[in-house]
Amino acid sequence: MSLIVVGSVALDSVETPLGKRDDMLGGSAVYCTLAASHFTNAKLVGVVGEDFPEKAIELLRARKIDLSGLETKPGKTFRWSGVYSDDMNERETLYTELNVFEDFNPTIPEDVRAAELVFLGNISPALQLNVLEQMTGTQFVAMDTMNFWIDGARDELIEVLRKVDAVIINDSEARQLSGSANLLAAARAIQKIGCPTVLIKKGEHGCFQVCRDDCFVAPAYPLETVVDPTGAGDTFAGGFMGHLARAGSSDPRTLREAVIYGSVMASFVVEQFGVEGLLELTDAKIGQRYTEFRNLVSF
Amino acid sequence: MSLIVVGSVALDSVETPLGKRDDMLGGSAVYCTLAASHFTNAKLVGVVGEDFPEKAIELLRARKIDLSGLETKPGKTFRWSGVYSDDMNERETLYTELNVFEDFNPTIPEDVRAAELVFLGNISPALQLNVLEQMTGTQFVAMDTMNFWIDGARDELIEVLRKVDAVIINDSEARQLSGSANLLAAARAIQKIGCPTVLIKKGEHGCFQVCRDDCFVAPAYPLETVVDPTGAGDTFAGGFMGHLARAGSSDPRTLREAVIYGSVMASFVVEQFGVEGLLELTDAKIGQRYTEFRNLVSF
Repeated sequence: MSLIVVGSVALDSVETPLGKRDDMLGGSAVYCTLAASHFTNAKLVGVVGEDFPEKAIELLRARKIDLSGLETKPGKTFRWSGVYSDDMNERETLYTELNVFEDFNPTIPEDVRAAELVFLGNISPALQLNVLEQMTGTQFVAMDTMNFWIDGARDELIEVLRKVDAVIINDSEARQLSGSANLLAAARAIQKIGCPTVLIKKGEHGCFQVCRDDCFVAPAYPLETVVDPTGAGDTFAGGFMGHLARAGSSDPRTLREAVIYGSVMASFVVEQFGVEGLLELTDAKIGQRYTEFRNLVSF
Repeated sequence: MSLIVVGSVALDSVETPLGKRDDMLGGSAVYCTLAASHFTNAKLVGVVGEDFPEKAIELLRARKIDLSGLETKPGKTFRWSGVYSDDMNERETLYTELNVFEDFNPTIPEDVRAAELVFLGNISPALQLNVLEQMTGTQFVAMDTMNFWIDGARDELIEVLRKVDAVIINDSEARQLSGSANLLAAARAIQKIGCPTVLIKKGEHGCFQVCRDDCFVAPAYPLETVVDPTGAGDTFAGGFMGHLARAGSSDPRTLREAVIYGSVMASFVVEQFGVEGLLELTDAKIGQRYTEFRNLVSF
Protein backbone atom coordinates (compact mmCIF):
# COMPACT_ATOMS: atom_id res chain seq x y z
CA MET A 1 0.00 0.00 0.00
CA SER A 2 1.02 3.58 -0.64
CA LEU A 3 1.71 6.02 2.23
CA ILE A 4 1.29 9.79 2.28
CA VAL A 5 2.55 11.90 5.19
CA VAL A 6 1.37 15.48 5.77
CA GLY A 7 3.16 17.66 8.29
CA SER A 8 5.88 20.16 9.00
CA VAL A 9 9.28 20.45 7.38
CA ALA A 10 11.59 22.46 9.58
CA LEU A 11 15.07 23.61 10.43
CA ASP A 12 15.65 22.83 14.11
CA SER A 13 18.22 24.19 16.52
CA VAL A 14 18.53 21.89 19.49
CA GLU A 15 20.55 21.77 22.69
CA THR A 16 20.68 18.66 24.86
CA PRO A 17 23.03 17.76 27.72
CA LEU A 18 25.13 15.98 25.09
CA GLY A 19 25.58 18.80 22.61
CA LYS A 20 24.12 21.48 20.41
CA ARG A 21 23.17 21.59 16.71
CA ASP A 22 21.89 24.48 14.62
CA ASP A 23 19.54 24.42 11.62
CA MET A 24 19.24 20.65 11.43
CA LEU A 25 16.74 19.14 9.03
CA GLY A 26 13.60 18.40 11.05
CA GLY A 27 9.82 18.61 11.22
CA SER A 28 7.17 15.96 11.72
CA ALA A 29 6.83 15.02 8.04
CA VAL A 30 10.59 14.68 7.68
CA TYR A 31 11.09 12.39 10.68
CA CYS A 32 8.02 10.37 9.72
CA THR A 33 8.90 9.86 6.05
CA LEU A 34 12.56 9.13 6.78
CA ALA A 35 11.53 6.41 9.23
CA ALA A 36 8.88 5.07 6.84
CA SER A 37 11.39 5.08 3.97
CA HIS A 38 12.97 1.94 5.43
CA PHE A 39 9.68 0.11 4.80
CA THR A 40 8.02 1.80 1.80
CA ASN A 41 8.32 4.70 -0.66
CA ALA A 42 6.68 7.40 1.41
CA LYS A 43 5.20 10.56 -0.10
CA LEU A 44 5.80 13.82 1.76
CA VAL A 45 3.35 16.71 1.69
CA GLY A 46 4.67 19.91 3.23
CA VAL A 47 6.02 23.38 2.58
CA VAL A 48 9.46 24.98 2.78
CA GLY A 49 10.85 28.45 2.13
CA GLU A 50 13.41 29.54 -0.43
CA ASP A 51 16.16 29.08 2.16
CA PHE A 52 15.60 25.33 2.43
CA PRO A 53 18.97 23.71 1.72
CA GLU A 54 19.37 21.77 -1.49
CA LYS A 55 21.33 19.10 0.38
CA ALA A 56 18.28 18.43 2.57
CA ILE A 57 16.26 17.82 -0.60
CA GLU A 58 18.98 15.47 -1.82
CA LEU A 59 18.99 13.64 1.49
CA LEU A 60 15.23 13.01 1.27
CA ARG A 61 15.47 12.00 -2.41
CA ALA A 62 18.28 9.60 -1.56
CA ARG A 63 15.83 7.83 0.74
CA LYS A 64 13.43 7.58 -2.25
CA ILE A 65 10.87 9.87 -0.61
CA ASP A 66 8.37 11.25 -3.15
CA LEU A 67 8.61 15.04 -2.90
CA SER A 68 5.98 15.95 -5.48
CA GLY A 69 3.85 17.27 -2.60
CA LEU A 70 6.61 19.45 -1.14
CA GLU A 71 5.95 23.07 -2.09
CA THR A 72 8.54 25.83 -2.03
CA LYS A 73 7.06 29.23 -1.14
CA PRO A 74 8.58 32.71 -1.03
CA GLY A 75 9.95 33.34 2.46
CA LYS A 76 11.74 31.31 5.10
CA THR A 77 11.34 27.71 6.23
CA PHE A 78 9.66 26.92 9.56
CA ARG A 79 12.25 27.10 12.34
CA TRP A 80 12.12 25.74 15.85
CA SER A 81 14.64 25.83 18.66
CA GLY A 82 14.57 24.05 21.99
CA VAL A 83 16.73 23.06 24.93
CA TYR A 84 16.29 19.83 26.88
CA SER A 85 16.55 19.36 30.64
CA ASP A 86 19.34 17.25 32.14
CA ASP A 87 17.12 14.16 32.36
CA MET A 88 15.74 14.87 28.82
CA ASN A 89 12.20 14.57 30.16
CA GLU A 90 11.42 18.24 29.70
CA ARG A 91 12.19 20.76 27.03
CA GLU A 92 11.93 24.50 26.75
CA THR A 93 11.10 26.08 23.41
CA LEU A 94 13.48 28.96 22.74
CA TYR A 95 11.66 30.15 19.61
CA THR A 96 9.13 29.02 17.01
CA GLU A 97 9.17 30.88 13.68
CA LEU A 98 6.30 29.52 11.59
CA ASN A 99 7.35 31.46 8.46
CA VAL A 100 5.92 29.76 5.33
CA PHE A 101 4.32 27.06 7.52
CA GLU A 102 1.91 29.70 8.89
CA ASP A 103 -0.10 29.66 5.66
CA PHE A 104 0.39 25.97 4.92
CA ASN A 105 -2.60 24.73 2.97
CA PRO A 106 -1.72 21.23 1.85
CA THR A 107 -2.56 20.40 -1.74
CA ILE A 108 -2.29 16.72 -2.45
CA PRO A 109 -0.87 16.17 -5.96
CA GLU A 110 -3.35 14.42 -8.30
CA ASP A 111 -1.24 11.30 -8.69
CA VAL A 112 -0.91 10.61 -4.96
CA ARG A 113 -4.53 11.25 -3.93
CA ALA A 114 -5.25 7.55 -4.27
CA ALA A 115 -2.76 6.58 -1.52
CA GLU A 116 -4.34 4.03 0.83
CA LEU A 117 -2.45 5.06 3.95
CA VAL A 118 -2.38 8.59 5.36
CA PHE A 119 -0.52 10.04 8.31
CA LEU A 120 -1.82 13.43 9.38
CA GLY A 121 0.99 15.08 11.30
CA ASN A 122 0.40 17.72 13.94
CA ILE A 123 -1.29 20.47 11.89
CA SER A 124 -4.63 22.19 12.59
CA PRO A 125 -7.67 19.90 12.58
CA ALA A 126 -9.16 22.07 9.80
CA LEU A 127 -6.16 21.31 7.57
CA GLN A 128 -6.29 17.63 8.52
CA LEU A 129 -9.93 17.55 7.36
CA ASN A 130 -8.97 19.39 4.20
CA VAL A 131 -6.36 16.71 3.43
CA LEU A 132 -8.83 13.89 4.01
CA GLU A 133 -11.32 15.50 1.63
CA GLN A 134 -8.73 15.42 -1.16
CA MET A 135 -7.97 11.72 -0.73
CA THR A 136 -9.84 9.27 -2.96
CA GLY A 137 -9.13 5.78 -1.63
CA THR A 138 -7.95 5.79 1.97
CA GLN A 139 -7.92 2.47 3.83
CA PHE A 140 -6.15 3.50 7.04
CA VAL A 141 -5.64 7.01 8.36
CA ALA A 142 -3.69 7.87 11.50
CA MET A 143 -3.42 11.32 13.04
CA ASP A 144 -1.31 13.20 15.54
CA THR A 145 -2.37 16.32 17.42
CA MET A 146 -1.20 18.49 20.33
CA ASN A 147 -2.35 20.42 23.40
CA PHE A 148 -2.77 23.61 21.33
CA TRP A 149 -5.51 22.03 19.17
CA ILE A 150 -7.08 20.04 22.02
CA ASP A 151 -7.65 23.31 23.84
CA GLY A 152 -8.22 25.64 20.92
CA ALA A 153 -9.98 23.64 18.20
CA ARG A 154 -11.71 20.86 20.09
CA ASP A 155 -14.82 20.59 17.89
CA GLU A 156 -12.85 20.30 14.64
CA LEU A 157 -10.45 17.88 16.33
CA ILE A 158 -13.35 15.63 17.33
CA GLU A 159 -14.61 15.77 13.74
CA VAL A 160 -11.20 14.50 12.54
CA LEU A 161 -11.07 11.83 15.25
CA ARG A 162 -14.40 10.45 13.96
CA LYS A 163 -12.99 10.13 10.44
CA VAL A 164 -9.65 8.45 11.17
CA ASP A 165 -8.70 4.89 12.08
CA ALA A 166 -6.02 5.67 14.65
CA VAL A 167 -4.76 8.51 16.79
CA ILE A 168 -1.13 8.51 17.93
CA ILE A 169 -0.59 10.90 20.83
CA ASN A 170 1.46 11.17 23.98
CA ASP A 171 0.21 10.47 27.49
CA SER A 172 -0.33 14.08 28.52
CA GLU A 173 -2.30 14.74 25.33
CA ALA A 174 -4.42 11.63 25.92
CA ARG A 175 -5.19 12.82 29.44
CA GLN A 176 -6.02 16.32 28.23
CA LEU A 177 -8.22 15.09 25.39
CA SER A 178 -10.14 12.59 27.54
CA GLY A 179 -10.13 14.33 30.90
CA SER A 180 -9.03 11.03 32.46
CA ALA A 181 -5.75 10.52 34.34
CA ASN A 182 -5.92 6.74 33.91
CA LEU A 183 -4.52 5.88 30.47
CA LEU A 184 -6.76 2.87 29.80
CA ALA A 185 -9.80 4.95 30.70
CA ALA A 186 -8.41 7.76 28.52
CA ALA A 187 -7.99 5.39 25.57
CA ARG A 188 -11.53 4.03 26.03
CA ALA A 189 -12.93 7.56 26.17
CA ILE A 190 -11.14 8.51 22.93
CA GLN A 191 -12.43 5.32 21.29
CA LYS A 192 -15.95 6.39 22.28
CA ILE A 193 -15.48 9.67 20.38
CA GLY A 194 -15.23 7.46 17.31
CA CYS A 195 -11.60 6.52 16.74
CA PRO A 196 -11.17 2.72 16.96
CA THR A 197 -7.40 2.58 17.57
CA VAL A 198 -5.72 4.74 20.21
CA LEU A 199 -1.96 4.62 20.54
CA ILE A 200 -0.53 6.43 23.55
CA LYS A 201 3.21 7.19 23.62
CA LYS A 202 4.84 7.30 27.05
CA GLY A 203 8.43 8.21 26.18
CA GLU A 204 10.88 6.14 28.24
CA HIS A 205 7.95 3.97 29.39
CA GLY A 206 7.10 2.76 25.89
CA CYS A 207 3.59 2.85 24.53
CA PHE A 208 0.15 1.48 24.88
CA GLN A 209 -2.26 0.60 22.07
CA VAL A 210 -5.97 -0.11 22.32
CA CYS A 211 -7.39 -1.39 19.05
CA ARG A 212 -11.12 -2.02 19.57
CA ASP A 213 -10.96 -4.64 22.37
CA ASP A 214 -7.31 -5.53 21.87
CA CYS A 215 -4.82 -4.07 24.39
CA PHE A 216 -1.11 -4.11 23.59
CA VAL A 217 1.77 -2.77 25.65
CA ALA A 218 5.23 -2.18 24.19
CA PRO A 219 8.36 -1.16 26.07
CA ALA A 220 10.77 1.54 25.03
CA TYR A 221 14.17 0.15 24.09
CA PRO A 222 16.37 0.57 27.17
CA LEU A 223 19.11 3.05 26.32
CA GLU A 224 21.68 4.26 28.81
CA THR A 225 22.27 7.38 26.76
CA VAL A 226 19.73 9.40 24.83
CA VAL A 227 21.46 12.00 22.66
CA ASP A 228 18.48 13.94 21.28
CA PRO A 229 14.80 13.05 21.82
CA THR A 230 13.61 15.46 19.06
CA GLY A 231 11.35 13.76 16.53
CA ALA A 232 11.02 10.47 18.44
CA GLY A 233 7.21 10.56 18.25
CA ASP A 234 7.09 11.33 14.52
CA THR A 235 9.74 8.68 13.88
CA PHE A 236 7.59 6.20 15.82
CA ALA A 237 4.65 7.10 13.57
CA GLY A 238 6.84 6.63 10.50
CA GLY A 239 7.96 3.14 11.50
CA PHE A 240 4.38 2.29 12.43
CA MET A 241 2.82 3.50 9.15
CA GLY A 242 5.74 2.21 7.10
CA HIS A 243 5.22 -1.32 8.38
CA LEU A 244 1.48 -1.16 7.61
CA ALA A 245 2.29 -0.02 4.07
CA ARG A 246 4.80 -2.82 3.59
CA ALA A 247 2.52 -5.45 5.14
CA GLY A 248 -0.53 -4.23 3.19
CA SER A 249 -2.72 -4.77 6.23
CA SER A 250 -3.98 -3.11 9.37
CA ASP A 251 -5.36 -6.09 11.26
CA PRO A 252 -4.69 -6.21 15.03
CA ARG A 253 -1.67 -8.47 14.64
CA THR A 254 -0.07 -6.20 12.03
CA LEU A 255 -0.87 -3.17 14.20
CA ARG A 256 1.06 -4.80 17.08
CA GLU A 257 4.05 -5.46 14.81
CA ALA A 258 3.79 -1.87 13.57
CA VAL A 259 3.97 -0.57 17.16
CA ILE A 260 7.23 -2.47 17.63
CA TYR A 261 8.67 -1.22 14.33
CA GLY A 262 7.70 2.29 15.42
CA SER A 263 9.48 1.72 18.74
CA VAL A 264 12.54 0.31 16.95
CA MET A 265 12.82 3.37 14.71
CA ALA A 266 12.30 5.75 17.64
CA SER A 267 15.08 3.96 19.56
CA PHE A 268 17.48 4.57 16.68
CA VAL A 269 16.61 8.23 16.16
CA VAL A 270 17.23 9.29 19.76
CA GLU A 271 20.72 7.77 19.71
CA GLN A 272 21.98 10.60 17.50
CA PHE A 273 21.18 14.26 16.82
CA GLY A 274 18.30 15.13 14.52
CA VAL A 275 17.61 12.64 11.73
CA GLU A 276 21.16 11.23 11.69
CA GLY A 277 20.11 7.98 13.36
CA LEU A 278 17.68 7.24 10.50
CA LEU A 279 20.14 7.60 7.66
CA GLU A 280 22.65 4.78 8.04
CA LEU A 281 20.19 2.09 9.06
CA THR A 282 19.98 -1.26 7.30
CA ASP A 283 17.22 -3.86 7.21
CA ALA A 284 19.55 -6.10 9.22
CA LYS A 285 19.94 -3.53 12.01
CA ILE A 286 16.19 -2.92 12.10
CA GLY A 287 15.49 -6.65 12.14
CA GLN A 288 18.02 -7.24 14.90
CA ARG A 289 16.53 -4.59 17.15
CA TYR A 290 13.02 -5.94 16.43
CA THR A 291 14.26 -9.31 17.72
CA GLU A 292 15.75 -7.57 20.76
CA PHE A 293 12.32 -6.09 21.53
CA ARG A 294 10.84 -9.58 21.44
CA ASN A 295 13.54 -10.84 23.79
CA LEU A 296 12.98 -7.86 26.10
CA VAL A 297 9.38 -8.89 26.85
CA SER A 298 9.51 -12.68 26.49
CA PHE A 299 8.72 -14.95 29.41
CA MET B 1 12.42 -23.97 48.48
CA SER B 2 11.36 -22.33 51.71
CA LEU B 3 10.63 -18.57 51.92
CA ILE B 4 11.01 -16.25 54.88
CA VAL B 5 9.73 -12.66 54.79
CA VAL B 6 10.86 -10.02 57.30
CA GLY B 7 9.07 -6.70 57.51
CA SER B 8 6.31 -4.64 59.03
CA VAL B 9 2.92 -5.78 60.23
CA ALA B 10 0.58 -2.82 60.47
CA LEU B 11 -2.91 -1.48 60.83
CA ASP B 12 -3.49 0.97 57.99
CA SER B 13 -6.09 3.69 57.60
CA VAL B 14 -6.38 4.65 53.98
CA GLU B 15 -8.40 7.10 51.94
CA THR B 16 -8.51 6.94 48.16
CA PRO B 17 -10.87 8.66 45.68
CA LEU B 18 -12.95 5.48 45.84
CA GLY B 19 -13.40 5.18 49.61
CA LYS B 20 -11.96 5.06 53.07
CA ARG B 21 -11.00 2.22 55.39
CA ASP B 22 -9.75 2.31 58.97
CA ASP B 23 -7.40 -0.09 60.75
CA MET B 24 -7.04 -2.51 57.86
CA LEU B 25 -4.53 -5.33 58.13
CA GLY B 26 -1.39 -4.13 56.34
CA GLY B 27 2.39 -3.83 56.45
CA SER B 28 5.06 -5.04 54.05
CA ALA B 29 5.42 -8.55 55.53
CA VAL B 30 1.65 -9.06 55.44
CA TYR B 31 1.16 -8.06 51.81
CA CYS B 32 4.25 -10.02 50.81
CA THR B 33 3.40 -13.28 52.61
CA LEU B 34 -0.25 -13.17 51.57
CA ALA B 35 0.80 -12.84 47.92
CA ALA B 36 3.46 -15.54 48.33
CA SER B 37 0.96 -17.84 50.07
CA HIS B 38 -0.59 -18.60 46.68
CA PHE B 39 2.70 -20.19 45.62
CA THR B 40 4.37 -21.53 48.77
CA ASN B 41 4.05 -21.74 52.56
CA ALA B 42 5.66 -18.44 53.48
CA LYS B 43 7.12 -17.70 56.93
CA LEU B 44 6.47 -14.26 58.37
CA VAL B 45 8.91 -12.54 60.74
CA GLY B 46 7.55 -9.39 62.35
CA VAL B 47 6.17 -7.80 65.49
CA VAL B 48 2.72 -6.70 66.62
CA GLY B 49 1.30 -5.12 69.75
CA GLU B 50 -1.27 -6.50 72.13
CA ASP B 51 -4.02 -4.74 70.19
CA PHE B 52 -3.41 -6.81 67.06
CA PRO B 53 -6.77 -8.38 66.18
CA GLU B 54 -7.15 -12.12 66.60
CA LYS B 55 -9.09 -12.28 63.34
CA ALA B 56 -6.05 -10.90 61.50
CA ILE B 57 -4.01 -13.78 62.93
CA GLU B 58 -6.71 -16.18 61.81
CA LEU B 59 -6.71 -14.68 58.33
CA LEU B 60 -2.94 -15.20 57.99
CA ARG B 61 -3.17 -18.74 59.42
CA ALA B 62 -5.97 -19.57 56.98
CA ARG B 63 -3.51 -18.78 54.18
CA LYS B 64 -1.08 -21.29 55.81
CA ILE B 65 1.44 -18.59 56.65
CA ASP B 66 3.95 -19.73 59.29
CA LEU B 67 3.67 -17.23 62.17
CA SER B 68 6.32 -18.73 64.47
CA GLY B 69 8.41 -15.61 63.78
CA LEU B 70 5.63 -13.14 64.61
CA GLU B 71 6.26 -11.69 68.07
CA THR B 72 3.64 -9.99 70.20
CA LYS B 73 5.10 -7.20 72.37
CA PRO B 74 3.53 -5.00 75.04
CA GLY B 75 2.17 -1.87 73.42
CA LYS B 76 0.39 -1.02 70.22
CA THR B 77 0.80 -2.30 66.66
CA PHE B 78 2.48 -0.12 64.02
CA ARG B 79 -0.11 2.18 62.46
CA TRP B 80 0.01 4.15 59.25
CA SER B 81 -2.51 6.41 57.63
CA GLY B 82 -2.44 8.00 54.19
CA VAL B 83 -4.60 9.69 51.62
CA TYR B 84 -4.13 9.29 47.87
CA SER B 85 -4.39 12.00 45.22
CA ASP B 86 -7.18 11.88 42.61
CA ASP B 87 -4.95 10.19 40.04
CA MET B 88 -3.54 7.81 42.74
CA ASN B 89 0.01 8.72 41.71
CA GLU B 90 0.75 10.61 44.91
CA ARG B 91 -0.03 10.00 48.52
CA GLU B 92 0.20 12.05 51.65
CA THR B 93 1.00 10.36 54.95
CA LEU B 94 -1.40 11.56 57.64
CA TYR B 95 0.43 9.80 60.47
CA THR B 96 2.98 7.09 61.18
CA GLU B 97 2.92 5.55 64.66
CA LEU B 98 5.81 3.09 64.88
CA ASN B 99 4.75 1.77 68.30
CA VAL B 100 6.20 -1.74 68.88
CA PHE B 101 7.82 -1.62 65.42
CA GLU B 102 10.20 1.07 66.68
CA ASP B 103 12.23 -1.49 68.63
CA PHE B 104 11.77 -4.33 66.14
CA ASN B 105 14.77 -6.61 66.36
CA PRO B 106 13.93 -9.62 64.26
CA THR B 107 14.79 -12.98 65.77
CA ILE B 108 14.56 -15.77 63.29
CA PRO B 109 13.15 -18.92 64.95
CA GLU B 110 15.65 -21.80 64.99
CA ASP B 111 13.58 -24.05 62.76
CA VAL B 112 13.24 -21.50 59.95
CA ARG B 113 16.85 -20.25 59.84
CA ALA B 114 17.61 -22.76 57.09
CA ALA B 115 15.13 -21.18 54.65
CA GLU B 116 16.70 -20.84 51.21
CA LEU B 117 14.80 -17.75 50.13
CA VAL B 118 14.69 -14.50 52.07
CA PHE B 119 12.81 -11.28 51.42
CA LEU B 120 14.06 -8.38 53.49
CA GLY B 121 11.23 -5.87 53.63
CA ASN B 122 11.78 -2.18 54.14
CA ILE B 123 13.49 -2.11 57.57
CA SER B 124 16.79 -0.48 58.54
CA PRO B 125 19.85 -1.85 56.73
CA ALA B 126 21.33 -2.73 60.16
CA LEU B 127 18.35 -4.99 60.87
CA GLN B 128 18.50 -6.45 57.38
CA LEU B 129 22.15 -7.40 58.04
CA ASN B 130 21.19 -8.82 61.40
CA VAL B 131 18.61 -11.07 59.74
CA LEU B 132 21.09 -12.30 57.14
CA GLU B 133 23.59 -13.20 59.89
CA GLN B 134 21.01 -15.49 61.49
CA MET B 135 20.28 -17.39 58.30
CA THR B 136 22.18 -20.62 57.69
CA GLY B 137 21.50 -21.69 54.12
CA THR B 138 20.30 -18.84 51.93
CA GLN B 139 20.30 -19.36 48.18
CA PHE B 140 18.50 -16.21 47.04
CA VAL B 141 17.97 -13.03 49.03
CA ALA B 142 15.98 -10.03 47.79
CA MET B 143 15.68 -6.72 49.59
CA ASP B 144 13.54 -3.61 49.58
CA THR B 145 14.57 -0.22 50.92
CA MET B 146 13.36 3.39 50.88
CA ASN B 147 14.48 7.03 50.56
CA PHE B 148 14.88 7.32 54.35
CA TRP B 149 17.66 4.67 54.43
CA ILE B 150 19.21 5.73 51.11
CA ASP B 151 19.75 9.17 52.62
CA GLY B 152 20.32 8.27 56.24
CA ALA B 153 22.10 4.90 56.31
CA ARG B 154 23.84 4.75 52.97
CA ASP B 155 26.96 2.86 54.09
CA GLU B 156 25.01 0.08 55.82
CA LEU B 157 22.64 -0.06 52.88
CA ILE B 158 25.55 -0.60 50.49
CA GLU B 159 26.82 -3.37 52.78
CA VAL B 160 23.44 -5.12 52.48
CA LEU B 161 23.31 -4.59 48.71
CA ARG B 162 26.64 -6.41 48.42
CA LYS B 163 25.27 -9.43 50.29
CA VAL B 164 21.95 -9.88 48.49
CA ASP B 165 21.03 -11.32 45.10
CA ALA B 166 18.32 -8.83 44.15
CA VAL B 167 17.02 -5.42 45.11
CA ILE B 168 13.39 -4.54 44.40
CA ILE B 169 12.81 -0.79 44.54
CA ASN B 170 10.74 1.86 42.83
CA ASP B 171 11.99 4.24 40.15
CA SER B 172 12.51 7.26 42.41
CA GLU B 173 14.49 5.12 44.88
CA ALA B 174 16.62 3.73 42.05
CA ARG B 175 17.37 7.26 40.87
CA GLN B 176 18.17 8.42 44.39
CA LEU B 177 20.39 5.43 45.14
CA SER B 178 22.33 5.64 41.87
CA GLY B 179 22.31 9.37 41.23
CA SER B 180 21.23 8.61 37.66
CA ALA B 181 17.95 9.78 36.08
CA ASN B 182 18.14 7.14 33.34
CA LEU B 183 16.77 3.87 34.72
CA LEU B 184 19.04 1.54 32.75
CA ALA B 185 22.06 3.54 33.88
CA ALA B 186 20.64 3.48 37.42
CA ALA B 187 20.26 -0.29 37.33
CA ARG B 188 23.80 -0.72 35.99
CA ALA B 189 25.18 1.54 38.72
CA ILE B 190 23.39 -0.48 41.42
CA GLN B 191 24.72 -3.70 39.88
CA LYS B 192 28.21 -2.22 40.15
CA ILE B 193 27.72 -1.77 43.90
CA GLY B 194 27.53 -5.55 44.02
CA CYS B 195 23.89 -6.61 43.58
CA PRO B 196 23.49 -8.74 40.43
CA THR B 197 19.73 -8.36 39.93
CA VAL B 198 18.02 -4.97 40.05
CA LEU B 199 14.26 -4.81 39.74
CA ILE B 200 12.79 -1.33 39.34
CA LYS B 201 9.06 -0.85 39.88
CA LYS B 202 7.42 1.95 37.90
CA GLY B 203 3.80 1.77 39.12
CA GLU B 204 1.36 2.13 36.22
CA HIS B 205 4.30 1.76 33.80
CA GLY B 206 5.18 -1.76 34.96
CA CYS B 207 8.70 -2.76 35.89
CA PHE B 208 12.16 -3.27 34.59
CA GLN B 209 14.59 -6.04 35.61
CA VAL B 210 18.29 -6.24 34.91
CA CYS B 211 19.74 -9.60 35.86
CA ARG B 212 23.46 -9.53 35.08
CA ASP B 213 23.33 -8.88 31.29
CA ASP B 214 19.69 -9.85 30.86
CA CYS B 215 17.18 -7.00 30.50
CA PHE B 216 13.48 -7.68 30.93
CA VAL B 217 10.58 -5.24 30.75
CA ALA B 218 7.12 -6.09 32.07
CA PRO B 219 3.97 -4.01 31.74
CA ALA B 220 1.54 -3.23 34.49
CA TYR B 221 -1.84 -4.84 33.95
CA PRO B 222 -4.06 -2.15 32.40
CA LEU B 223 -6.82 -1.34 34.87
CA GLU B 224 -9.43 1.35 34.30
CA THR B 225 -10.02 1.60 38.02
CA VAL B 226 -7.50 1.31 40.83
CA VAL B 227 -9.24 1.15 44.19
CA ASP B 228 -6.27 1.24 46.58
CA PRO B 229 -2.58 1.17 45.58
CA THR B 230 -1.40 0.45 49.15
CA GLY B 231 0.87 -2.59 49.35
CA ALA B 232 1.23 -3.05 45.59
CA GLY B 233 5.03 -3.12 45.79
CA ASP B 234 5.16 -5.62 48.66
CA THR B 235 2.54 -7.75 46.92
CA PHE B 236 4.70 -7.69 43.80
CA ALA B 237 7.65 -8.92 45.89
CA GLY B 238 5.47 -11.68 47.36
CA GLY B 239 4.38 -13.00 43.99
CA PHE B 240 7.97 -12.74 42.76
CA MET B 241 9.52 -14.59 45.71
CA GLY B 242 6.62 -17.04 45.91
CA HIS B 243 7.17 -18.16 42.34
CA LEU B 244 10.92 -18.63 42.94
CA ALA B 245 10.11 -20.76 45.99
CA ARG B 246 7.64 -22.87 44.05
CA ALA B 247 9.93 -23.22 41.02
CA GLY B 248 12.97 -24.01 43.18
CA SER B 249 15.15 -21.89 40.91
CA SER B 250 16.39 -18.37 40.35
CA ASP B 251 17.80 -18.67 36.85
CA PRO B 252 17.12 -15.73 34.47
CA ARG B 253 14.12 -17.44 32.88
CA THR B 254 12.52 -18.16 36.26
CA LEU B 255 13.25 -14.59 37.37
CA ARG B 256 11.35 -13.31 34.32
CA GLU B 257 8.37 -15.53 35.14
CA ALA B 258 8.59 -14.33 38.74
CA VAL B 259 8.38 -10.70 37.62
CA ILE B 260 5.14 -11.51 35.80
CA TYR B 261 3.70 -13.38 38.80
CA GLY B 262 4.62 -10.39 40.93
CA SER B 263 2.86 -8.09 38.45
CA VAL B 264 -0.18 -10.41 38.40
CA MET B 265 -0.50 -10.34 42.19
CA ALA B 266 -0.01 -6.56 42.31
CA SER B 267 -2.76 -6.13 39.71
CA PHE B 268 -5.17 -8.08 41.92
CA VAL B 269 -4.33 -6.27 45.15
CA VAL B 270 -4.98 -2.76 43.81
CA GLU B 271 -8.45 -3.76 42.62
CA GLN B 272 -9.72 -3.81 46.20
CA PHE B 273 -8.96 -2.13 49.52
CA GLY B 274 -6.07 -3.41 51.62
CA VAL B 275 -5.35 -7.13 51.34
CA GLU B 276 -8.89 -8.04 50.22
CA GLY B 277 -7.84 -8.68 46.63
CA LEU B 278 -5.37 -11.38 47.78
CA LEU B 279 -7.83 -13.45 49.78
CA GLU B 280 -10.32 -14.89 47.30
CA LEU B 281 -7.83 -15.68 44.56
CA THR B 282 -7.59 -19.11 42.96
CA ASP B 283 -4.82 -20.73 40.96
CA ALA B 284 -7.11 -20.51 37.94
CA LYS B 285 -7.54 -16.73 38.29
CA ILE B 286 -3.80 -16.25 38.73
CA GLY B 287 -3.05 -18.48 35.76
CA GLN B 288 -5.60 -16.67 33.60
CA ARG B 289 -4.13 -13.25 34.35
CA TYR B 290 -0.61 -14.60 33.74
CA THR B 291 -1.81 -15.63 30.27
CA GLU B 292 -3.34 -12.18 29.80
CA PHE B 293 0.07 -10.64 30.54
CA ARG B 294 1.58 -12.80 27.82
CA ASN B 295 -1.11 -11.71 25.38
CA LEU B 296 -0.59 -8.07 26.37
CA VAL B 297 3.02 -8.07 25.13
CA SER B 298 2.94 -10.65 22.31
CA PHE B 299 3.70 -9.69 18.74
